[in-house]
Amino acid sequence: MIKFVALYKHPEDKEKFDEHYFSTHAPITEKIPGLLKMDVTKFVGSPMGGESEYYLMCEMYYESMDTFKTAMKTEEAKASGKDLMSFAKGIVTFMIGEEVNE
Amino acid sequence: MIKFVALYKHPEDKEKFDEHYFSTHAPITEKIPGLLKMDVTKFVGSPMGGESEYYLMCEMYYESMDTFKTAMKTEEAKASGKDLMSFAKGIVTFMIGEEVNE
Repeated sequence: MIKFVALYKHPEDKEKFDEHYFSTHAPITEKIPGLLKMDVTKFVGSPMGGESEYYLMCEMYYESMDTFKTAMKTEEAKASGKDLMSFAKGIVTFMIGEEVNE
Repeated sequence: MIKFVALYKHPEDKEKFDEHYFSTHAPITEKIPGLLKMDVTKFVGSPMGGESEYYLMCEMYYESMDTFKTAMKTEEAKASGKDLMSFAKGIVTFMIGEEVNE
């Protein structure tokens, strides 16, 4: 299983970010062919107190690296990427991960 | 549901890190009372090519903020924290998150 992870730093305007993220960006992203599951986590703090390093995380699951790579070439993925740049440029980091089965 | 997230930067010696993480640290951490599930993800790259910003992520699930806070005060959590400092000091970041149900 491939886990594609997007980590977002704290946006300047959290209300505006949330509005765009949940009403526009998430629905566009969910349409990407091959996407099995999408989990969104909102960070509320750090165990040492104070603000967490990131604001939000989105985890997108794909069956394999091949299905992930194919998905990234679709029109739906391009639309998601284009939308992303309209509201999260400079605050988002992406990583490709593999789940470890201990 | 509370998701306690540990993000690890790339260690200097990956082999040594993996050996300690999977043979010692994960088993100690899994004993923390109240921990419902623990998911480990290893990052293999970034979509733009090159190395990912982080090396590994561990997601630990707790039923609520109360059960999480209680868990953090146990001897098992203290043992996990002490072990962590022996191999990952300076490369680990923790965040407390809440899953968003869209």
